[in-house]
Amino acid sequence: VAGPPKKPVAIGTEPPRGMRDILPDEAELRDATAETILGVYRRYGFRRIETPALESIQLLTRGEGGENEKLIFKVLKRGEKLDLTRASSEADLVDLGLRFDLTVPLARYFANNQARLPRPLKAVQIGPVWRAERPQKGRFRQFTQCDIDILGVRSEIAEIELILATTEALTALGVADLTVRINDRRILTAMANACGFDAARHGSVFITLDKWGKLDPAQIVDELTRAGHPGHAVQRMMQVFTDFDRRRGLDALREHVKEPDGIEAIESLRRILDSVQAQDRQITFDATLVRGMSYYTGPIFEISAAGFPASIAGGGRYDRLIGGLLGHDVPATGFSIGFERVISLLAERAGGGPRRAVRVALVFDEALTDLGPVLAEARTLRAQGHDVSLEVAAKRAGPQAASLREQGFEVRWFRTPGQPAGGGT
Amino acid sequence: VAGPPKKPVAIGTEPPRGMRDILPDEAELRDATAETILGVYRRYGFRRIETPALESIQLLTRGEGGENEKLIFKVLKRGEKLDLTRASSEADLVDLGLRFDLTVPLARYFANNQARLPRPLKAVQIGPVWRAERPQKGRFRQFTQCDIDILGVRSEIAEIELILATTEALTALGVADLTVRINDRRILTAMANACGFDAARHGSVFITLDKWGKLDPAQIVDELTRAGHPGHAVQRMMQVFTDFDRRRGLDALREHVKEPDGIEAIESLRRILDSVQAQDRQITFDATLVRGMSYYTGPIFEISAAGFPASIAGGGRYDRLIGGLLGHDVPATGFSIGFERVISLLAERAGGGPRRAVRVALVFDEALTDLGPVLAEARTLRAQGHDVSLEVAAKRAGPQAASLREQGFEVRWFRTPGQPAGGGT
Repeated sequence: VAGPPKKPVAIGTEPPRGMRDILPDEAELRDATAETILGVYRRYGFRRIETPALESIQLLTRGEGGENEKLIFKVLKRGEKLDLTRASSEADLVDLGLRFDLTVPLARYFANNQARLPRPLKAVQIGPVWRAERPQKGRFRQFTQCDIDILGVRSEIAEIELILATTEALTALGVADLTVRINDRRILTAMANACGFDAARHGSVFITLDKWGKLDPAQIVDELTRAGHPGHAVQRMMQVFTDFDRRRGLDALREHVKEPDGIEAIESLRRILDSVQAQDRQITFDATLVRGMSYYTGPIFEISAAGFPASIAGGGRYDRLIGGLLGHDVPATGFSIGFERVISLLAERAGGGPRRAVRVALVFDEALTDLGPVLAEARTLRAQGHDVSLEVAAKRAGPQAASLREQGFEVRWFRTPGQPAGGGT
Repeated sequence: VAGPPKKPVAIGTEPPRGMRDILPDEAELRDATAETILGVYRRYGFRRIETPALESIQLLTRGEGGENEKLIFKVLKRGEKLDLTRASSEADLVDLGLRFDLTVPLARYFANNQARLPRPLKAVQIGPVWRAERPQKGRFRQFTQCDIDILGVRSEIAEIELILATTEALTALGVADLTVRINDRRILTAMANACGFDAARHGSVFITLDKWGKLDPAQIVDELTRAGHPGHAVQRMMQVFTDFDRRRGLDALREHVKEPDGIEAIESLRRILDSVQAQDRQITFDATLVRGMSYYTGPIFEISAAGFPASIAGGGRYDRLIGGLLGHDVPATGFSIGFERVISLLAERAGGGPRRAVRVALVFDEALTDLGPVLAEARTLRAQGHDVSLEVAAKRAGPQAASLREQGFEVRWFRTPGQPAGGGT
């Protein structure tokens, strides 16, 4: 196959920093995984939608993306819009950016197309997002997200459907021992009020609370104290959450929650817990579940799988995000599967990856003048549903056959009549 | 659903110029189309691969991309690599770009991963590419390409497989009356030599030849003459191509072709034509087929469908493209389906788009305290393969039912015992 030598290679062949080339085995696992997830979501009535990879830089930097907004790959203006001599800041140079999630584009999509979309909209999206994060093991600058969202439903039936659909999709992939944890932003707020934290500084309390279970209680106290929260509030919080009984958690918290919003949230969570448990899913209330994005307004939830450290799906209700674009609020709630985490979980398994039907390699001499019989055989086998690859016989048949078998092919030989046998070893 | 009024919307909700939001019906058609194409290609032994959307700007601007290199969406450098005060040109500002095709990334992918890839590599890719073209009807700045490539096979069996697989994929989609047209860059060169054109100016001859059939013969002569080609060569060319008999074309050209490369090309094309015809495909030699990219070195081909003006797939052999990155040549040939053209062709059909199994909407009163029976019914129907959507009953049942039926749902009602009937109209 080697041709004549060329001038030395002047360019690297690696993909850009933090990004990856996907080899055939993993690409096939990813395809099969996406197909399984989409199949389940379709059965739950979700419709597939797509938005462009690029969005206006104004949309991407409105503040809804939190820390992700610092990680945008920004696109240079083109043609006469780009004036290098007058540009004094980044803002003069860029007009577009690569999306960092699928939620901000969904809000724009809904606002732009609402007249032509079903109401309520039950949408499923799967596609790449980009974040210029410092590369590290298992974290990439381009990765796939898979989100379902229900827009236009205020009732907790939306959360119930999201949770049932997503646990069913993960189960269909063979991810076992799933646990759903659920909380509500309104309960977090009510608890922080009940403990006596300053309402303007709840965000900082939640950031620390999110580390519950990862840090020692002493470290939690330390972090809250350093952040300047009042000692009596910190003590109260430690007491409430340490006493906390996971099984009876929701009822136990009831005595602390006085405001109507919080009471409504508890009732709503109770209904979600009951309905989901009745459908044989493992779901628990977790008063320390926070989740990062500031746009959540109601129930928030995550799924974890036994033996896998991080959560593999997460989401929540964001009733006010779309209003920022549309001018009036639209109730909305969504669930996102960590597609890359699911793939690494499935790939780690012995023999992970989809098993294909019989694959056949038909190997023929290049001297064969009539390809008819080879092509006819290939056609027959393909019509039977086999994957068939035609291969020109290499000089050394042994290594060729070994390599084909390693790729999962059953090897069959077509030889020119009257030619020396060759191959078949 | 409407919440309290918000401050006026300050941002457009349209997607970026030349890009589109894809609504559910089209998204589902696209998914089903991609799945059909991939299914056929898998049966032909092609393996799915993926590369990142972003590539280094150096790779994208090496000259292999021709005019497309002028249309790159370029990405601003990040962090300390970006120094606005010292930047004097675009090159100082950008380090990455969005890919404009799938061939240049494939060459890099092969060079980067060759030790871990099957040899030969039969690869299938499907994914978006980006080009900052002036937006016009039917042309978008983000669009999907679907390419198959065979790397490492010098024999024309590679072309035969590409053509059989691609015609089968298009037929599986229901695109009827396909014709493959085929030519060879070596024949084009031999013909231009035979007519007496300057070897250094063949490119300009081919650009005009590509318009054969679209322009009058007089316009062709005019364009070639204006481009400064010698009158005797122009006259000779007009004679040869006007006399040209499409059915016996390949044999008729033989008398003009003297050089070994050209003779080899004719024999190779004859073999491809015979093998493909024997498999019941419509294929013809077209001496005026040129195709745009400069990297082609051997057979080039296109597929057109009856009643559709543009070609819907095209490709060719590019034996020297990978050598530029790898240091030695690797024989390579590929075929690209114009995915967006196929989608518009399929969407134009009456009732185009995939027909789903029975879809059922279960509509229930929000007052229903026990969701158990609704969820149980949904579970049963989904297990039977139906798509089921749970919907909260709207105040006005008639319009809700009409809208659900319009979306293809069969509507069933769940009512709270003792509540007024409502709905069902």
